[in-house]
Parts: sequence; C-alpha cells; structure tokens
Amino acid sequence: MSEKLSTKPYKGTRDFYPDEMRQRTKVFSSLEKTVRSFGFEKIDAPIVEPIEIYLAKTSEEIVNQQIYSFIDRGERRVAIRPEMTPTVARMFSGKARELPRPVRWFSIPNLWRYEQPGKGRLREHWQLNCDILGAPDEFLADAEIIMLAVEILKSLGATQSQFIVKLSHREILNSFFEKRLGLAKENWPTIARILDKKEKISGEEFSSFLSAAGIDAVGQEQILNFLTGGLQWLRENPEIDGAGYLLELMALLEKSGYSEHLAYDPGVVRGFDYYTGIVFEVFDTSGENRRSLFGGGRYDKLVSAFIKEEINAVGFGMGDVTLFDFLQTHQILPGPQRELQVFVASFPTPEDQVNSFRLAREIRNLGIPAEMGLGPAKLGKQLAEAAGKKISFAIIQGLEEKDRGVVQIKNLETGEQVEIPEEEIVEQVKAMAGDRYDTQK
Amino acid sequence: MSEKLSTKPYKGTRDFYPDEMRQRTKVFSSLEKTVRSFGFEKIDAPIVEPIEIYLAKTSEEIVNQQIYSFIDRGERRVAIRPEMTPTVARMFSGKARELPRPVRWFSIPNLWRYEQPGKGRLREHWQLNCDILGAPDEFLADAEIIMLAVEILKSLGATQSQFIVKLSHREILNSFFEKRLGLAKENWPTIARILDKKEKISGEEFSSFLSAAGIDAVGQEQILNFLTGGLQWLRENPEIDGAGYLLELMALLEKSGYSEHLAYDPGVVRGFDYYTGIVFEVFDTSGENRRSLFGGGRYDKLVSAFIKEEINAVGFGMGDVTLFDFLQTHQILPGPQRELQVFVASFPTPEDQVNSFRLAREIRNLGIPAEMGLGPAKLGKQLAEAAGKKISFAIIQGLEEKDRGVVQIKNLETGEQVEIPEEEIVEQVKAMAGDRYDTQK
Repeated sequence: MSEKLSTKPYKGTRDFYPDEMRQRTKVFSSLEKTVRSFGFEKIDAPIVEPIEIYLAKTSEEIVNQQIYSFIDRGERRVAIRPEMTPTVARMFSGKARELPRPVRWFSIPNLWRYEQPGKGRLREHWQLNCDILGAPDEFLADAEIIMLAVEILKSLGATQSQFIVKLSHREILNSFFEKRLGLAKENWPTIARILDKKEKISGEEFSSFLSAAGIDAVGQEQILNFLTGGLQWLRENPEIDGAGYLLELMALLEKSGYSEHLAYDPGVVRGFDYYTGIVFEVFDTSGENRRSLFGGGRYDKLVSAFIKEEINAVGFGMGDVTLFDFLQTHQILPGPQRELQVFVASFPTPEDQVNSFRLAREIRNLGIPAEMGLGPAKLGKQLAEAAGKKISFAIIQGLEEKDRGVVQIKNLETGEQVEIPEEEIVEQVKAMAGDRYDTQK
Repeated sequence: MSEKLSTKPYKGTRDFYPDEMRQRTKVFSSLEKTVRSFGFEKIDAPIVEPIEIYLAKTSEEIVNQQIYSFIDRGERRVAIRPEMTPTVARMFSGKARELPRPVRWFSIPNLWRYEQPGKGRLREHWQLNCDILGAPDEFLADAEIIMLAVEILKSLGATQSQFIVKLSHREILNSFFEKRLGLAKENWPTIARILDKKEKISGEEFSSFLSAAGIDAVGQEQILNFLTGGLQWLRENPEIDGAGYLLELMALLEKSGYSEHLAYDPGVVRGFDYYTGIVFEVFDTSGENRRSLFGGGRYDKLVSAFIKEEINAVGFGMGDVTLFDFLQTHQILPGPQRELQVFVASFPTPEDQVNSFRLAREIRNLGIPAEMGLGPAKLGKQLAEAAGKKISFAIIQGLEEKDRGVVQIKNLETGEQVEIPEEEIVEQVKAMAGDRYDTQK
C-alpha cells in the first residue's frame, strides 16, 4: 500500500465544505447587495501581481515578512496579492482617461499573508474592498464611505450597541506632532506607533515608551489631552490642520443620523505612510474581539505610483475572518440551511430511470432544484440519504404511478406521504415548505 | 519625477473592469443556477495547495512545465492550483466517513498554468467544476453528468446545432488495444496520443505516426474501422470491455431526449492515466473554435491517493476562456448592461448635502440602487457624469423642492424631465425603465 497524502488544507487556510460555503455565500451576498445599492460596481483582477506594485506603499512588515512572492519561469518577480488596493490603483491608472469619475469599485478578493495563524489571523482570507476614486468633492466621498461601512454592518443585522466606527484625520495627528509637540517629521512614525498601542498597554507602559522616545512630561500631558479631549479639543485648536474638516464631517454624519455609530478618536493611526486624510477603524463593542473589525481611509498618493495625475481616493477593506467572528459573537451569523429543493427517487429498470430523469428535469424547469437518487435499488436507503442531506421532500413515481399521472410526495422530516397529481408538485412542495426556506440564490 | 509602474496585469492574465465583470457575473450566475438545480452544492478551497496532491495524477506536462510552484517561508513546497479535481478528492477524503453520499459538488476556482498565452489559453482562468463522488449507481451518475453538461450550454442559450458532446469509455480503448491490436500495456499511452491527434493531422501523417509506433497495415486498418465504425462497431464487438456499458448509456440518454447533442467517438482520449470510465469532450460545431470547449469523465482512482477506500467519481471542468469564445462566436454572450439604478444629484450647501444623502438612502431602502453625486457644484456636469456611467435616471431635489415634497426625475437618455411627488420615485422609475433592465443580482 502506498502512503496516503494528507487531507488537510495548507497551514493557515480553510476548506469551505457546503455548510460553510453556504454561510459565506449568504454573508457575501448581503454585503454585495448593500454595496451595489450605493452604485458600486464589481471588479476583479489576477491573484498574482508584479511585486513592484507592493514595494511603494504596502507596509514594510508585509513586504519583508508576510508576502508570498516567487520568481516565475520567465524570471519575473511576482507576488500573490497581500492586499487589493495597489491593484485597484493599477487598474484605475490603466484607464484613468476614459473612466467616468468618480469611480466606485468593489471586489471580494482572496488575499495571502504569511502569518502565524491565530484568532482573526489566517494566511488566506477574503476581503470586501470598497473604493471611491476621483471624486470631484472628496468631502462627500469621505462621508459616503463612512455611511457605507455602517450600512453594511446594519444590513447584516448588527445593531447600534454592537459596533462603533472610530474616526480621525491624518493631518490632525501630523499637525499636532508639528505644532504642539514640535517634533521633527522623521520622529512622527515612532510616536504614532506608540499612540496606536495605547489601548493594548498600561498607562505606565505608555508613559515609559513616550519617555524613551524623548517626550517629556509636558509633552505627555499634551498627548493625553489630545487623545481624551474629543471634538472639544478640536474646537479649541482650530489652527490644527484637519480639525475644521473633521468637525464638518462629523456634523454632516450626525445630521444624517449616523452619530450613534460614530466616535472621533485621534488615536486611530493605521498605516502611517499610506493614508493622507480621514482614517477610521470599526470595533466590536462586546470586548470579545479586541482587534479592529475593519478599517480604511483616504489614500491620495497611491495612484501616483502609476500615473502623474494625483487622484483622490478613499476606501476600506473588510476581512471575512474578523467579520465572521463578530457575527458569531453577536449571534447574527446566518445558518447553513439549504435552499428549498426536492429529492426524486430512482428505480432500477431502464424505463424507470428514463422516467425519473424526466420527472427531475420537469421539476427543475418549474423552478425547484431537484436532486435525483443515484441508486441503490432500495427506496428506503435512498430516502435516508436524502434526509441526511437535509432535503425535506421526496418525490416518488414508479411506472404504475406515471401511467396514472400521479406522484407520491413524502415529507422526510415528518414521514407524512400523500399522492398528488404530477402537475401539482411545485404548488404542493411550496405549500408544505411554507416560509421555512430561502429562495435559491 | 520617479519612474511610473506599469498598469498592465501580469502576462497572460486579465483585469475585469466593471463591463467585463458584469458579463462574467451574468454567465457564472446562469451556470450556477443550472448546476444548483441538479442539487449540486458549492464548495471552495485555498488557491495554494501542497504540491504532492498534483504529483500523483496530474499530467506530467502540467507538473513539470506549467505548474506555479514555490517554496514557502516554512520550507514547504506548494503550488498555486493548476486544476481543482485533486482538491475535490482531498476535501472528500477529509470527511469521507461523515459526508452523505452521493456528494454533488461544484466550484468556480481560478486556476493557474504557466502557458504561452494564445487563443483560448491564458495563465489564469476560471473553471466551473462539477463532480459526483460516491454514487451508489455510477451508471446513473455518468448519465446525469452528461445531461448536466448539455443543460448548462442550453441554459446559456446554445442550440442543438452549435455544440456536440463526444463520448467514449476508457475501457473500450484499453480493451481494443489489448484484444484487437495485442498491444503490451506500456505501449497504450503512445498509441492513445496518436489517436488523440487524428483530427489535427492528415491521414498520411496519422499512418506514418502509427507505423513508427510499430502498428502494421492490418493494425492500422483495424484502428480506422474502430474509429469510424460508431456504435455499430460496439454492437459487433460485444466482448470489448465497456462496449455494453456505453451502448446502455447511449440508450438511456437517447430515451431521455439527449441524442441530438451527443455522439459516440472512440477517438476521445483525454488524460490517459487519469480517467477510468466514461470520457467526453464538448465541441463547438462552428469550426471557429477547434479546441474542445470542455470535457470530463470518470476518475475512480484519484481519491485513493488520500484514503484506502476506492470512491467512484465523475465530473467535468469548464473553463471560462473557451466558453466565452464559444458564446461570442454564436452571439449569445450577455451584454455588459448595468442593472437599473438612479443617480441622485447633490448640491453644495450642508443642508442640501444632508438632504441628498437622505434621499439616496430612502431610494435604496425602497429597493433601487442609488448613486449619489459627489460634486462638483454644477448640476449639468454631474448629470453628464451619470450619463457617462450609463445611468438612465437622475433624481434632483433642492431644498425648495424638498419643502414641497417633490423631486425632478430626468431621463438622461431622452432629456425628458418631470416633477413628481417624492413618494412616487420608485414607481415612476420602474415605469419609465419598463423591461429594459435586469433586476439586481
């Protein structure tokens, strides 16, 4: 006997069997429907890209430690995409002159990062990407992206108390560093990284990190005021860049009914080099899932890696792993229930087989999926298999019944069986099913 | 100025902009609907697999010359999947004991092969995979797979005269080699490869290849009779293995109304080591696309690379590149038309902006996607952009109109504009759109 191969998927990845796939399809369909309702159009692109498109803006950690890259047989250095945004920028640039603006694009790519697998972290994940590029008025685009992020979660059944969007603006942080702390530009990223850690470390640790980075007690006091002062701090410091913009944006979102989902948080940092305007992160308020659910922001420089024109752009990426954790925590993950369908039993004679195939086809043509029994001869065994597949109704018709124009319809959950005219199958099945089933996707 | 990056996708791959994506979505939705109507359930799996799963049965040409493989950061040799069937076998094996049989699975993976790009051949393509594993009666499974292949093309609008399924059985060829030609088993693959080429070469070339492979004139005569004798040859040679099986299968398919789509062709070879029972290939009859559209067959040995139990399995894989060529040739490729949606104009004051966002949201909640204008101030420019995006209807409401509870609705194709009560928007848009639009997917 030869040695058998492992049936496990590659480390840090998942197989999607029908039950899991059905849940994924339901969640993604809901996401897609909401995103499309805002006028976003779906795009797609190859999973392999030239590595150059990640070298400019993707974080060093990803490129050096996490990217799946290799040399192809033609000596090109390529990568399996770790994120979608560089691809979006590449595609936009390729048709920048002909695309009517603003462009609203979404995609649901699978992305790869070489991570140590853990909660919320896998090597392959799917990510809903939504981007608006080239908006004549970027303020409105920023507002719409935040609204979209909220509406997506609401359409999945999440309520106001279950999540919060924390919003800031990169220029506020930069301007604070420059005008209040008097920091040289090269020190900004270091301090930003410490701010980013604040929620995960103690007050003492926070203070000692800042001291080590050369921030004295006065500076630390200012940082604390900045981080905890909320919108009031912005109102009192109007000369800080971005302050007026953020206040206006918060006002529009509030008047549009989004304030309950939203908080200004100057501690939202995200990719420091990447974002140029608003930045936001969405958090689960339950405390079960500490990492941000997803996030995004404005990245006006990315497209200029490809073309001269500077294109304003704002968007977010929502990964399926953290999203599903969130849905599970709040018990709003859709179940793996199958769509309504029937089972058509088969019999061993050639005439019977022809008849069963005909019957199954007719039911399909009338709009209900029909799975045919592929033997064995014993009817009881076929019906048990169908029940095992969570099919609720079986249609049975031998040749004698065919001659009489009738079928037996059996409810595989209750055992109830009735004889009905063949032409009433669909009507009967729907009546018996009631509203227990989704209609077919 | 730094040098700009290329905006082209990686060689041999495609970007899907919204127009192309819409076509792909429409075709794949149609495929999925048909496949689901037979009771198939969707699965998915990671795009990267351990390379071992391809070494057993995937053709040598693919593994040695075409596979995208690399060593990961953990020293594992992995591959980007060149085909889906080994993954299906791995997944089935991983839950072989608990899965109710038969298993009917489908997937639409993207697959990678390092090919010289050309007509019908790209490095990344999508492929509809359908498989039935563990059927109690494999004869019925074989029949169903052929029916499914035909129904898929019919549901895309293909007619009887546009395609033909050529069907054979691996054992017929093997048995002919053994019992009629007296060939040693190790020579079977060589002769099979020559048979596979027959349609692409001249009669003289065919004969000289056979002579070079040691087939004398008598053997060549037998081969020609075998290849051209059709079902009659099978009836006259009942001691050939597989002959009776294929005659029965053809009879069932004929009685089920599929004979017009079907022909027995003993020259169908496909992967010689891979298939163990029926094999089939679907051809475009127009002559425009010479390569087979898609194909499949029975592969009972594949699962035994993972588990001891031998599992019967039959399936096919249908690639999007050849399929789209076929649909284009016969002018049945769906157009890139957008779903019905409206454009909501915006105005520059904060009160107007709040109102436009509100209006757009209300239209979405009533079931019609609404794309909001993101500036600039000039209404005419906004409407021109909307028309450029092939949106047919614009909704315009300033604050004065809001106070009166009305909106302007403008047909961007005809220029026609009417004022209507706000609560009649959806009704009006649907009436004006008539049946020119698909409903949202």
